[in-house]
Amino acid sequence: MDETRFAVLGTGGIGRRTLEVATHKDGLTAVAACDRNGVAIDHGGLDVGELLDATEGNIASGPEDDPDVAADGGAQAAAQSEGVKQHGDAAGITASAQGRKTETPIGDIIAESDRIDAVLMALPNLEHDFIPRVAERFAEADYEGVLIDVLKRSRVIGMLEDREETLVESGITFVCGAGATPGFLTGAAALAAQSFVEIESVEIWWGVGLKSGYEDNRGTVREDIAHLDGYDIETAREMSENEIEDLIQDHGGRLEFHDMEHADDVLLERAGVCDAEDVSVGGILDIHQDEKPTTTTVSVTGTTFDGETGTNTFQLDDATSMEANVNGPAIGYMKAAVLRNRAGDYGVYGPAEVMPGF
Amino acid sequence: MDETRFAVLGTGGIGRRTLEVATHKDGLTAVAACDRNGVAIDHGGLDVGELLDATEGNIASGPEDDPDVAADGGAQAAAQSEGVKQHGDAAGITASAQGRKTETPIGDIIAESDRIDAVLMALPNLEHDFIPRVAERFAEADYEGVLIDVLKRSRVIGMLEDREETLVESGITFVCGAGATPGFLTGAAALAAQSFVEIESVEIWWGVGLKSGYEDNRGTVREDIAHLDGYDIETAREMSENEIEDLIQDHGGRLEFHDMEHADDVLLERAGVCDAEDVSVGGILDIHQDEKPTTTTVSVTGTTFDGETGTNTFQLDDATSMEANVNGPAIGYMKAAVLRNRAGDYGVYGPAEVMPGF
Repeated sequence: MDETRFAVLGTGGIGRRTLEVATHKDGLTAVAACDRNGVAIDHGGLDVGELLDATEGNIASGPEDDPDVAADGGAQAAAQSEGVKQHGDAAGITASAQGRKTETPIGDIIAESDRIDAVLMALPNLEHDFIPRVAERFAEADYEGVLIDVLKRSRVIGMLEDREETLVESGITFVCGAGATPGFLTGAAALAAQSFVEIESVEIWWGVGLKSGYEDNRGTVREDIAHLDGYDIETAREMSENEIEDLIQDHGGRLEFHDMEHADDVLLERAGVCDAEDVSVGGILDIHQDEKPTTTTVSVTGTTFDGETGTNTFQLDDATSMEANVNGPAIGYMKAAVLRNRAGDYGVYGPAEVMPGF
Repeated sequence: MDETRFAVLGTGGIGRRTLEVATHKDGLTAVAACDRNGVAIDHGGLDVGELLDATEGNIASGPEDDPDVAADGGAQAAAQSEGVKQHGDAAGITASAQGRKTETPIGDIIAESDRIDAVLMALPNLEHDFIPRVAERFAEADYEGVLIDVLKRSRVIGMLEDREETLVESGITFVCGAGATPGFLTGAAALAAQSFVEIESVEIWWGVGLKSGYEDNRGTVREDIAHLDGYDIETAREMSENEIEDLIQDHGGRLEFHDMEHADDVLLERAGVCDAEDVSVGGILDIHQDEKPTTTTVSVTGTTFDGETGTNTFQLDDATSMEANVNGPAIGYMKAAVLRNRAGDYGVYGPAEVMPGF
């Protein structure tokens, strides 16, 4: 396979690790990355080691800093991806020798997107239509290539579908929800469904231990909090770091989620596997220990053509971190999407559609 | 999705059940089927119920009947797919009101392939290059569409790759090894691998209980016997039904297989997941009971980007029959391949490539 030149929008935990995990893979060259304040572009390939070292513990901005609209429309949003404080003027990517300050980081990458094959949008915890709007900007620039996000919210999928025609015209292959869940586990559910002709239920149950990774994953934790009873994405976004810490303490460091609004449901329905309402997503997040509080398991119950009812299961070893299970699949879906894009296969896809159809 | 019009070559156990399972799925219309003696073609859609009823227990020919080359080059091979005896002159498909006798069943379907979107080649237990040669015949007729097989043998994949250019020129999307294993379980292994940056081993272990289905699955059992120590595909093909029965009795009805030459290894290597030698395939076939003698499990062991070693697992419920796990995925891969074919994505694919790339 030809080299895939990719960009990462947002260099919070997910963006950083995508850059790192990609160095373990053949055929991938990181050529651009941006955060709120800056952008680094090198079509010959970024020095990922230098970029990660320079920005370690120095990720630009948190939601408490300046949550309002910046000049670029997406610049500040990109920065909000994780809530780690910045240090000094040279915050985030501008701390890297490869970075430069800009007020239009996403725009700068779009301006050079004709030399980019794939773009991972690692931008959690933003307004619902933010990623669809960024996708539109790529389409307006006639970008022909792959866009990937690791979104979790069901309602975003419809917003992407509304823009499908625009994306197809531009030549964009968009894989949405391509992280761990949805993403990895949605794909597993679609595969596990293959034994059956009728699906009764899909249960996705995850365990995440995040003690050592908490600093790097505040955006993700904030996003999860939005799924707790009594919270939504707006209230979670407006919480201060202290309020989040308090909430976590009140729960003894362990947050348990049930019936989350996770895009797994609409993505499995899109793929024809089952109705969205037959999908349930929940899990336990433990911020006080690295060990997973429960084993991540996908259970698909259905009826076979010969009338038997059974449950197929997919389990992730407790030793595999949330980070490994988000970033491996994100890159895996990106690689698959590039092949499809090169074959002229444009439009919006869920992870379960980059699988054998049900 | 537009209607997919498909054909089945070979109406032994796998071919029959593909026709049956497809009736449970949306968007699929069976338009052609053939066996050794006959062909049934109706572009408006076959009456699958009538076809299956008429040919029940009446599948054309067994390997003991006439194992040598027939006029069509593939006609007799198609018939060998299962070893159930024929009844009377109107054996197999010709027993159906929709069937007609022909000496060139595969050729008859190729002649009308411009109106067919996908062809499942349900032809086990044949000479190694038989399916590659049939694929070539479709390409010579400028067929533009999908070909699927449920092959098990590693060496066939190379023969297909040798013909890849011819298939691409014709506009054929070929998914090989798209049954249970390889197929379903190879796909599961490729997915389970997504947590890791380096794969140590893939272990595929299957259990099949076949008491009630034995009559319908003699071809598959014969194919499996070729994997036992001291046997190969040629010796297995030459065994009489009695010799096979004796062999099964000698093993107490339970055949255990280790280190099978199963195409899972080359298909996972093709997909970039691991080296073929890191894949092991084995299992237990019990012909005296319906219950599975062991739980079908895929175990993928690897190292994560953050240095942990773990094993992800995929398990099929014991209640899901071998038949459900072959035919569901075969149809699933066929549906996925049709979408890719329509997007202009031609060539040879393994099941693990219709998955997120590793």
